[in-house]
Amino acid sequence: MKTMVIGGAGFIGSNLCTELIREGHGVVCIDNFSLGKAENVSHLICEEQFELIEADATDEGALDGLFSKYHPEYIFHLAANSDIRESADNPEIEYRNTYTTTLRILSAMKKFDIKKIFFASTSAVYGDRRDEVLDENTSNLSPISYYGASKLGSEALISAFSYMNDMSALIFRFPNVVGGHLTHGVIFDFMKRLEEDPVRLIILGDGNQTKPYIHEADLIGAIMMLMDAPKGVSLYNVGTHGATKVTSIADIVCEEMGLKDVKYEYTGGESGWKGDVPRFRYCMDKIHATGWRARFSSDEAVRAAVRDILKERESHG
Amino acid sequence: MKTMVIGGAGFIGSNLCTELIREGHGVVCIDNFSLGKAENVSHLICEEQFELIEADATDEGALDGLFSKYHPEYIFHLAANSDIRESADNPEIEYRNTYTTTLRILSAMKKFDIKKIFFASTSAVYGDRRDEVLDENTSNLSPISYYGASKLGSEALISAFSYMNDMSALIFRFPNVVGGHLTHGVIFDFMKRLEEDPVRLIILGDGNQTKPYIHEADLIGAIMMLMDAPKGVSLYNVGTHGATKVTSIADIVCEEMGLKDVKYEYTGGESGWKGDVPRFRYCMDKIHATGWRARFSSDEAVRAAVRDILKERESHG
Repeated sequence: MKTMVIGGAGFIGSNLCTELIREGHGVVCIDNFSLGKAENVSHLICEEQFELIEADATDEGALDGLFSKYHPEYIFHLAANSDIRESADNPEIEYRNTYTTTLRILSAMKKFDIKKIFFASTSAVYGDRRDEVLDENTSNLSPISYYGASKLGSEALISAFSYMNDMSALIFRFPNVVGGHLTHGVIFDFMKRLEEDPVRLIILGDGNQTKPYIHEADLIGAIMMLMDAPKGVSLYNVGTHGATKVTSIADIVCEEMGLKDVKYEYTGGESGWKGDVPRFRYCMDKIHATGWRARFSSDEAVRAAVRDILKERESHG
Repeated sequence: MKTMVIGGAGFIGSNLCTELIREGHGVVCIDNFSLGKAENVSHLICEEQFELIEADATDEGALDGLFSKYHPEYIFHLAANSDIRESADNPEIEYRNTYTTTLRILSAMKKFDIKKIFFASTSAVYGDRRDEVLDENTSNLSPISYYGASKLGSEALISAFSYMNDMSALIFRFPNVVGGHLTHGVIFDFMKRLEEDPVRLIILGDGNQTKPYIHEADLIGAIMMLMDAPKGVSLYNVGTHGATKVTSIADIVCEEMGLKDVKYEYTGGESGWKGDVPRFRYCMDKIHATGWRARFSSDEAVRAAVRDILKERESHG
C-alpha cells in the first residue's frame, strides 16, 4: 500500500517508516525538520519504496502538490509539536504545529478523496485525573496543557471530517513513548544532563510523578496490527503494564550509563512544570480485546530506551 | 463592570449588549460585521457606557490594542461562524471564525491578565446522539459538523487556558437560539422564502427534524444570572421545555405571517443537510439546580421569535 507518514523523520514517525518499509509498504516521508532529523531515516534512503521530502504540513499548496503527485492511500499523521514543556509558554506553537497541521491534512484528504488516517493523540486530552482509571468512555475531558487541548481539538476535527467524508480514522491516545530517536522528554533530558555533569542531576518536580512509558516498538506493533480500521473513528488508549516514577527513571539512566553516586537535586512540587500531569492510569481493556499486548512493561521500556539511545550514540560517535 | 462583547453586533451578541447596558455595565462591542450588523446595536449608540468598534477577533494586533486601551474585566466571546450549513462545504470558515477567534481572544486575555470569559458553545459538540438524553457528563463527544468540531476544540482551549492562567470560564452549550436579530437558520429562511413566494415553501429534509429552540431573552437571562462563575470552567447545557418539529415551525411561521394553504415541498431525508443533527435532547438538571428556568417552551420561543422578526421588519419600514 502507498502510505504517507507526515512527521516521518521524528521520533515515532521514523520508527514507523522503518516498520512500514519492512512490511513491504511504499512510504513517502514528509517532515519540516523542526523536530525531525534526516538522520533518523537515513538508513531508509536507499530503499526503492521510500522517499523523503521536506515540506510543512501547514502549507496547503505543498500538501496539494504532494497528494496529487503521490496519491497515498493511507496517511499517518504524526506532525505535531511534541514538546509540551516548550509550548506551556507559547500556545501558538500548538495552534500551528498540532492543530493547524491536522486541519490542513484532513482538508487535503477531503480534496483528494483519501479515506484512511492514523492520528497520534495523547493521554493529555484527559487532563489531570490522578488516580482515576481512564478508559475511552471517560467523560469531561479537560486538558490542562495547550498541547492536550490542541490534540483534543484535532480529535474533534477528525470526528467531523470522517463523518462528512466517509473516512476511516484510527486514533491512539499515547502515553509517554520512549525508544531510539527520542528528541525530548525526561529520559532524553537526564541523559543529556548527565553527559554534561555526571555527578549531579537536576530533577523537575519532587520525582514522584509516575506515568506509564511505552516502548516505540510496542506502540508501532499496535499501529501495524490495527491500521486497517473500519469506517468512522476507532479510538484506543494504548499503554503498557505498570508505571515508572521519575526518580526510578533517573536510577535506570544512571545504572545504564554506568554512573554511581549521582546526587539528585529536586526542583520540588508535584508536577515537573505547570501543565504537566503528575500521574495517570489507563484502562486497556479495549485494546487488549483486539489481541494486542505490549511486550515491555513500563520499567522495561524505560531501560530499553536508554540502551537504544546509548547504542545510537556509539554508532554515531 | 467593564465588559467586552466580541461578536457583539450579531444575533445573540446584540441582545446581550442591550441587557448588559440595561444592568449598568460598560460595554465595548467588537464585531467584524461579517454576520453582525451595526443596526442591531444602533439603539445603544447614544449610551455613554457603550462603544462599538469594528475589529476582527483573529487579528492579534487589533485585540492587543483594544485590550490595552479598554482593560475589560469580562470577555463575552460570541465571535464565531454561526451558519453550520455554509461551513459544511468549507471547513476553513470554522477554522478561522470559530477556532482561531477563540485562540486569539484567550491569548490576549493571558497577555493582559484578564480572568473572566463567557463562551458560547453548542449542542453540536455531542454529535448525532438521537434519543439519548445529553447531560454535561455525557462522554464520547463526536461532532459530525466542522462547526461542532471547532466549538469542541474551543472548549478544550478554554480548559487549558483557564488552568494555566487561573481564569474563570462560563461555557453554555446552546441549543438552537431564536429571537429578534436572527441572521440565519430555519425560521429566518422560512420567513425569507415566504416573502418571496407566499404559496409554496421548500423545507429541507423530511420536516421531522425535532430540536429544542430557546428564546434569546431566556438564554441571556441565564448568562446574566450565572456570569459570576468560580475559577476554572463551569459548563452548562442550556435549553428549554420541549422541542419543535421543523414542519411545526413552518406552520407557526405561516400562521403568524397570516398565510393560508401554503404548499410544503420537502427535499427529503432525515437531516436538512449533511452534518445537521436531526434531533437531540438535553438533560437540564445542572442548570435548573442554579434556580434558572426558561420562561418560553420551545414552541413558544419559536412563535415569539417570528413575532420579534415581524415587528423588526415593520419598524424598519
